[in-house]
Amino acid sequence: MTPHDILRSMRVDEVQSKEAIEAFVSGVVSGSFSRPQAAAWLAHAFRRGLSDEETVVLTRAMTDSGTRLKWPVGTPLVDKHSTGGVGDKVSLVLAPLWAELGWRVPMISGRGLGHTGGTLDKLESIPGYRTDLEEARLGEILEHIGCFISGQTGEVAPADRILYALRNETCTVESIPLIVASILSKKLAEGVERLVLDVKTGSGAFMETEEDSKALAEALVRVAQGSGLVCNALITAMDRPLGEAVGNAVEVQESVACLKGEGPEDLRTVVLQLTNHPDATEVLRSGRAFERFVKMVEAQGGDARSLEDFKRLRGGGVGEAVLLAEREGYVQEVHARAIGVAAFELGAGRLRAEDPVDHGVGMWVHVEPGQRVSEGQPIATLLHRDGKNLDVAFRMVHDGVVIGDEYKPATPLVRAKIG
Amino acid sequence: MTPHDILRSMRVDEVQSKEAIEAFVSGVVSGSFSRPQAAAWLAHAFRRGLSDEETVVLTRAMTDSGTRLKWPVGTPLVDKHSTGGVGDKVSLVLAPLWAELGWRVPMISGRGLGHTGGTLDKLESIPGYRTDLEEARLGEILEHIGCFISGQTGEVAPADRILYALRNETCTVESIPLIVASILSKKLAEGVERLVLDVKTGSGAFMETEEDSKALAEALVRVAQGSGLVCNALITAMDRPLGEAVGNAVEVQESVACLKGEGPEDLRTVVLQLTNHPDATEVLRSGRAFERFVKMVEAQGGDARSLEDFKRLRGGGVGEAVLLAEREGYVQEVHARAIGVAAFELGAGRLRAEDPVDHGVGMWVHVEPGQRVSEGQPIATLLHRDGKNLDVAFRMVHDGVVIGDEYKPATPLVRAKIG
Repeated sequence: MTPHDILRSMRVDEVQSKEAIEAFVSGVVSGSFSRPQAAAWLAHAFRRGLSDEETVVLTRAMTDSGTRLKWPVGTPLVDKHSTGGVGDKVSLVLAPLWAELGWRVPMISGRGLGHTGGTLDKLESIPGYRTDLEEARLGEILEHIGCFISGQTGEVAPADRILYALRNETCTVESIPLIVASILSKKLAEGVERLVLDVKTGSGAFMETEEDSKALAEALVRVAQGSGLVCNALITAMDRPLGEAVGNAVEVQESVACLKGEGPEDLRTVVLQLTNHPDATEVLRSGRAFERFVKMVEAQGGDARSLEDFKRLRGGGVGEAVLLAEREGYVQEVHARAIGVAAFELGAGRLRAEDPVDHGVGMWVHVEPGQRVSEGQPIATLLHRDGKNLDVAFRMVHDGVVIGDEYKPATPLVRAKIG
Repeated sequence: MTPHDILRSMRVDEVQSKEAIEAFVSGVVSGSFSRPQAAAWLAHAFRRGLSDEETVVLTRAMTDSGTRLKWPVGTPLVDKHSTGGVGDKVSLVLAPLWAELGWRVPMISGRGLGHTGGTLDKLESIPGYRTDLEEARLGEILEHIGCFISGQTGEVAPADRILYALRNETCTVESIPLIVASILSKKLAEGVERLVLDVKTGSGAFMETEEDSKALAEALVRVAQGSGLVCNALITAMDRPLGEAVGNAVEVQESVACLKGEGPEDLRTVVLQLTNHPDATEVLRSGRAFERFVKMVEAQGGDARSLEDFKRLRGGGVGEAVLLAEREGYVQEVHARAIGVAAFELGAGRLRAEDPVDHGVGMWVHVEPGQRVSEGQPIATLLHRDGKNLDVAFRMVHDGVVIGDEYKPATPLVRAKIG
């Protein structure tokens, strides 16, 4: 089928055959489908949508466009995917926790972009931690430690890389079937059998409304199941940050606390509900999950001493600036996006994939929605690099943390379970 | 407005402001709107359509992307545009006829592509005829002769050139507002005040059904009027070829006959109805239109002796092959597209803009729908170059001319008048 055959069929909303979708994906990678032709295809897909059947085929074709990891038969191969949020360090806790529970977790993760941080950036706060390990070494780590968190090996779903860039360029990002295919094509390439999804909802999330988040979560679960994965999803709050730490090194610190059964309640709740295993609380409390994390970090070349002595984490030498409450009252809102953008402005994030991040900057947010505060009480501690963008970040956090007279409880942390 | 602003607005079918459309067109020319972004815009436009108001703005912006011809105040500035067909040599007759009627006709014409011929290709059958004259020289000819038929000068509507290529690439050609803007943007650049449209309908036309042709004609007239032109349209038959000659030099010959008040009836009827002037028949019959044509050809560097002695036309030395009726009966169909493709195969047309054409090849079609023929009567005379593609062309004409027992009249030549 030629690009013209396929575009003529797409433009009148015909059901797309397996052959047509596979020809599109392989044509995008080979270049026989030109970038303008692919852009037109995406615009049609954005408008007409894709059925679950079409999305399953698209996902599989995108996965098959690149290398797929393969693991020996054995204990369950499980991964988690989050749609991304502010302060979302859940992956750092889940991988060792699940490994300790007897699952294998071959976690391929990504970097941050915009106001949401990336798991790899956070882990690279640990001196020596390598995120560019080869498949053979990853296989050894998976066998001996039970988990790894690393970057893509080889060309994982190159069709997704091309289409993702084109979607950004052509404003066709916000299409549920295209989002689903993009996420799942990369997860399928990891060779996992089970996938747990954490779909965030709120100002700091990709999907701001609960309705959109639910639609995305349901589509993800349906298409993942249609692709042969065991899959379920949680929808969790991202109107405020998750936990107190937002940045890179600070989030490693908070992950370590959680891995020891400590740290903020909301982070632990999300970790436990995504795990859904009766032994999980005990595995955290006992310190076994933390020990597993240490082993994983060491296996990936990281200096585990930094997990006990946080001054050894990268990005040291930052300044601290404390924002104080200007009045007493109830915290009515800790606006996740404002906090995320403030951390980004301080240097914790990046605008382009090739930009560096500053591992030391970010912030600790000391309050949460529904909390009573008095005048002069610390609201947040901003970690800055020589005052860079401190005034703008300060203003953002100030405006993002709303204090009022009336008590307003936090929105529920876990909104729905799907699948 | 950025490309993202505009694409976000297009994808949800918002009314497009003047600013948004102008930013799109100028961005396409400057490159600030990337080709994939322009392709997505076109796909949205294809699906949602454009209102007349939006199309007027798009047309004007495309015109303004390039040079516009300017003529002194004086007698009416008139042009005709045809949507293209097989054997359509109407422009060659109209320009001198209208000049003789006292109008100025600054006709910028194009080349053939696919199975439909191009006016410039036909005129270049005349030795020395130049289609690349500069604006200053065109102005002199218009002043002294009253008409010219030449190719584009300078960059006429470069936005259209870019968008037209992209529409071909992305299967977004068949969109009435995009077609209308493409046609009218170039006509507005000619600096005319009045535009007469000949919208063809049938197998040999761009629009095959009368319904589509009518929709196109109505949109063209509305948008032309909205752009300040006096405009009306005819819808004319293109289920069979117009006239008997199909090719390049042969069509010049037939045009000469028509310019002398002779030649086939259908061609003369279309010429007269498009002209709609009480003196037109007499101007043809008197030979004055032909004399004006001679003057125009000479002014454009052509050897006018070839208009009396057709052996002097370019492309001589072709072979002739006559197709005979295999049976007696009524001609039920002379399939325009089959005839056009046959002439194309013989070498009269081109697939790519840069290909040459053979001015000598083509054919004379001796029969028309509704005509009674006897066995062995000549159906068509094919003019071929050393037998090139003669067998395939012969077969096409054979299959395209259907002879049956029952009388089936030709469909009406002029289907509708609009505006």
